Amino acid sequence: MNEGTMMYDLARRIFPIYRSITGEGVRETFRILKEWLGDACTFNTYEVPTGTQVFDWTVPREWKIRDAYIDDEEGNRVLSFRDNCLHVVGYSCPADKVVPLEELLEMIYTQPDQPDVIPYVTSYYKDRIGFCMTENQKKALRPGNYHIVIDSELFDGSLTYADAVLTGETEEEILFSTYSCHPSMGNDNCSGLVLSAQLIRAVAAMPKRRYTYRFVFGPETIGIIAYLSQQDRYLSLREKCRAGFTFSCVGDDREYSIVHSQSGKALSDRALENALKSRDPAKVKHYSFLTRGSDERQYNSPGIDLAVAGFCRSKYWVFPEYHTSADDLSVISPEGFQGSFDVMMETVELLEHNAVYRTTTPCEPQLGKRGLYPTVSQKGMYDSVAAMMDLLAYANGERDLITISEEIGVPARELIPIARKLEEAKLIERMCAQ
Amino acid sequence: MNEGTMMYDLARRIFPIYRSITGEGVRETFRILKEWLGDACTFNTYEVPTGTQVFDWTVPREWKIRDAYIDDEEGNRVLSFRDNCLHVVGYSCPADKVVPLEELLEMIYTQPDQPDVIPYVTSYYKDRIGFCMTENQKKALRPGNYHIVIDSELFDGSLTYADAVLTGETEEEILFSTYSCHPSMGNDNCSGLVLSAQLIRAVAAMPKRRYTYRFVFGPETIGIIAYLSQQDRYLSLREKCRAGFTFSCVGDDREYSIVHSQSGKALSDRALENALKSRDPAKVKHYSFLTRGSDERQYNSPGIDLAVAGFCRSKYWVFPEYHTSADDLSVISPEGFQGSFDVMMETVELLEHNAVYRTTTPCEPQLGKRGLYPTVSQKGMYDSVAAMMDLLAYANGERDLITISEEIGVPARELIPIARKLEEAKLIERMCAQ
Amino acid sequence: MNEGTMMYDLARRIFPIYRSITGEGVRETFRILKEWLGDACTFNTYEVPTGTQVFDWTVPREWKIRDAYIDDEEGNRVLSFRDNCLHVVGYSCPADKVVPLEELLEMIYTQPDQPDVIPYVTSYYKDRIGFCMTENQKKALRPGNYHIVIDSELFDGSLTYADAVLTGETEEEILFSTYSCHPSMGNDNCSGLVLSAQLIRAVAAMPKRRYTYRFVFGPETIGIIAYLSQQDRYLSLREKCRAGFTFSCVGDDREYSIVHSQSGKALSDRALENALKSRDPAKVKHYSFLTRGSDERQYNSPGIDLAVAGFCRSKYWVFPEYHTSADDLSVISPEGFQGSFDVMMETVELLEHNAVYRTTTPCEPQLGKRGLYPTVSQKGMYDSVAAMMDLLAYANGERDLITISEEIGVPARELIPIARKLEEAKLIERMCAQ
Repeated sequence: MNEGTMMYDLARRIFPIYRSITGEGVRETFRILKEWLGDACTFNTYEVPTGTQVFDWTVPREWKIRDAYIDDEEGNRVLSFRDNCLHVVGYSCPADKVVPLEELLEMIYTQPDQPDVIPYVTSYYKDRIGFCMTENQKKALRPGNYHIVIDSELFDGSLTYADAVLTGETEEEILFSTYSCHPSMGNDNCSGLVLSAQLIRAVAAMPKRRYTYRFVFGPETIGIIAYLSQQDRYLSLREKCRAGFTFSCVGDDREYSIVHSQSGKALSDRALENALKSRDPAKVKHYSFLTRGSDERQYNSPGIDLAVAGFCRSKYWVFPEYHTSADDLSVISPEGFQGSFDVMMETVELLEHNAVYRTTTPCEPQLGKRGLYPTVSQKGMYDSVAAMMDLLAYANGERDLITISEEIGVPARELIPIARKLEEAKLIERMCAQ
Repeated sequence: MNEGTMMYDLARRIFPIYRSITGEGVRETFRILKEWLGDACTFNTYEVPTGTQVFDWTVPREWKIRDAYIDDEEGNRVLSFRDNCLHVVGYSCPADKVVPLEELLEMIYTQPDQPDVIPYVTSYYKDRIGFCMTENQKKALRPGNYHIVIDSELFDGSLTYADAVLTGETEEEILFSTYSCHPSMGNDNCSGLVLSAQLIRAVAAMPKRRYTYRFVFGPETIGIIAYLSQQDRYLSLREKCRAGFTFSCVGDDREYSIVHSQSGKALSDRALENALKSRDPAKVKHYSFLTRGSDERQYNSPGIDLAVAGFCRSKYWVFPEYHTSADDLSVISPEGFQGSFDVMMETVELLEHNAVYRTTTPCEPQLGKRGLYPTVSQKGMYDSVAAMMDLLAYANGERDLITISEEIGVPARELIPIARKLEEAKLIERMCAQ
Repeated sequence: MNEGTMMYDLARRIFPIYRSITGEGVRETFRILKEWLGDACTFNTYEVPTGTQVFDWTVPREWKIRDAYIDDEEGNRVLSFRDNCLHVVGYSCPADKVVPLEELLEMIYTQPDQPDVIPYVTSYYKDRIGFCMTENQKKALRPGNYHIVIDSELFDGSLTYADAVLTGETEEEILFSTYSCHPSMGNDNCSGLVLSAQLIRAVAAMPKRRYTYRFVFGPETIGIIAYLSQQDRYLSLREKCRAGFTFSCVGDDREYSIVHSQSGKALSDRALENALKSRDPAKVKHYSFLTRGSDERQYNSPGIDLAVAGFCRSKYWVFPEYHTSADDLSVISPEGFQGSFDVMMETVELLEHNAVYRTTTPCEPQLGKRGLYPTVSQKGMYDSVAAMMDLLAYANGERDLITISEEIGVPARELIPIARKLEEAKLIERMCAQ
């Protein structure tokens, strides 16, 4: 079974769980991930009590929902949480009352430009009673009284986040981060949880690792802020983290999207861009930091200063099913997951092998005597060794492999085996990790 | 009465005065400006005696002209200074003689490509007798003798320049400079004198000023060289001046032109460009320093090194009426003046509010609890706060507001109130003036 | 007789000589060049014994060839070295045996995409018996036995290279390098030898030289590596060399090609680019360092670090006759040589006159009193002095003349006389050589 299929199966398993920024849904999701990962890593979960200050934020009350529905005067069930969990605004206050249509309408959210979908709406930080339905459902509501019930609870509890760290030869870190707060939607964000989990397995299975790999899971915004704030993790990350990526909407099979870090030129950007160079350029989209929307917002913020890039297939906000009931298991696929996994593994490969090289001899070395150069010289023969000659010419002790790749126009993936060959022949030497 | 109308009225008043690089016309103009400005500022005038060395130049003799004409053999007045003062080449030597047509023709200047206008011609530094007329007038001259009279005088006198300084909270200066040497032409340069005067009034009326504002008036080239040279003003300007602008042809209502400083990236360029971003891009022209022509030539010269940018509506050289009798009061208008005034006041506003900001908290702050962020989250809602989020994300203690404006693509004018709001909420803090 | 004609005559003289990376052909060529140069310079030749280590390389055995042919069973001469010396693979081992067609075919090299030319093929570092013929000749071979004879010899001898150094006022050097290893081909490389020789004459005849000029001649790759390695020449070159050029295929009259140094922004690039600006842009080709192929490979390599640019007319690899028997005396011409010579002399001129200038007076100087500026001011007159005014405005003690040329868009060649005039008028002064 290939990785894509395994990932899709895992997505199917966690899809039905109702997640929010706090609560049992998140905990249940983490339990499944931990079990699925098995021995691959130590999967740590953390609870942050309601009221805890995390940087400028305060951890909110925990939220639990058991049921919700709207009945009309005849007792017909207009809407039920059991049909689709998106029908209730996330973090809705409890309610059990009869209201006339006019009052009900003020509590209803729809997506008028997509009249057949239920939008995903939340109100974490302001008490509110709210329902979501399709625009067509709303239009069909007739005057009269409605019995609305939200069997929810807001109470002092805790917010849950998790991480897994795979130590490498050095303390320098590569960071992967995804969020755990979205209820039943497929691409956003079952897919990110699943890609992170599969990457943990793959990285754990690598025979050796130069870098330490850190995988972070938490509710978007507040969870990552809590993660960075607590134990002053941001200080050690700022010191050790060399590159990082946030995952969002990585399960569909449409395009590949990179959301650049603030400078757009960090190692994160350069490594991921380079890996994407081997993909069909028509399917690769490059988004500026100005279009950021997930936790790259926190990682790149002044004071944190981690140049983390975002990775998506169809970018959040852009694909039509985004944040609606249409973002279900049909949007994602084994093929989509496999594509995301392959890109991220190639990125890991590039980072592992990236190094600043220096040639060991002035002038070009005599490659022929080492079997690395054609022994007959006729026009056109240089082409076959051009990448090797270029690598030798640009390995001046200042450029790393990715920079050389960019300057000579050859994907870094193709340069890695050449660099290894030249290193074994002692024609180049590694200066230091970058 | 709006500023444009007041400015046009002032232009009408100074238009008829005959100005040159020295003489009573300049002094009379300065007297009117001083009177018009009233209590707004101390308007200082300075006299530099003939023969004074100013850098590489020597202040020439003062020039006075009372009358000039050409009569033909029949006593018909072919041309009279009283009809149009441009008929005499500026700084013409006195003359009173009868000459045949051939000799007269050598003294005549026309604009052959514009046969109906009198060109504006000067000969400040070489003794010369010269008349200007339309090409058609010249073609109509018939053989015969002509009585030519120029009742002018060149004598040891002085060159006059002026300035006004409005002190601010700091000694850092913003410079505005315009020239006072052109006879009756509307756009070039009544308009510059008028814009400077109106700006003095407006800046003087500002409730507080971070910068000190310096307004310089003098004959083009020699006057500004004298200004910079005397009292070693260029040394203190080089130290204190943060941005500067020369005004030329700022009274018409065609386009907005910026003549960039040598680097094109100085604060002057960036502030004025930013202010122009709110104007119709089709009406904004960007000129390289290679097309400079007014006193930005002196300010930017090596040894002075003030990165001053030029501001025009239709740029000198470019509009058809330039340096001809067609550049009269019909070329300029209240609307044209108002546009120039608004752009320069917006530039002043940007400079006053420009600062390097730093966010005070790692990660994004919780804007919702401060009423600065939507409390409901649904797709599309981020747009309304994107500029605020971007400002927070880019305020890293290194970028000034104008740089942030350029990087996030939002005019600085729109960022100023946002920055004020964030500063009041103590979410960003000012590092230092730039 | 112009230089082009003299150069073509010299090319005709050295064309027939059979050159390889070692041997009498190279020595004979150098003897002719030395004689042709006469008193213009001291032309030094050097012998490097077989087996000498030069950086990563070992000087190979010397090769001598006396004759070679193939006879068929009927005694018909299928191919003879005396008809065309390209018929034998360079550095072929001796042979005298009868082989069947199948075996012969394995020794034969052709250029299938150009069926009427004999390709130029070498095998310097691997023992091999090889013949070259046209594809059509090969196709005409009938089954049977063939008597193949190569009367060659490989023996411990030496590799020959040469140089000539014309000392200047300073020890700073300009380098010209060309290769001496190609047998009878016109553009590649008789032409490079000839251009270098003519330049030696011209530079030697210059009344004064700021720079010292070094001309290097040696077999491509191994010869230049030997040159740089021996006497640690690369260390002093790295210290003293300011710009350098390799010559290859400089005798045809098609286009002008520059092969950029690695950065593409070195003085070599900038000077040659500037000289080429005066040529028809449609005939100037700019090649990136990634397309390098001659000894700029060695000069630019890490550890040598000389930012040498390549100069060609039609670039090697690109023109159809390249490395075939079609590259004969008909490809090159007096006109082609003259064009190359003119470009390189203009480049020398630019380098000699390039300097960092600083204006001596703040503000613009009064050019009128020095007769350098129109005394009448009317619109349009500024154009005639724009280049002079721009030079004054940009001469800030940091830009060299070539940089000013690039920034103001005027070829440096036109700025040289202006700079001289301003220097004589003491309006600019030279800071230091660059």
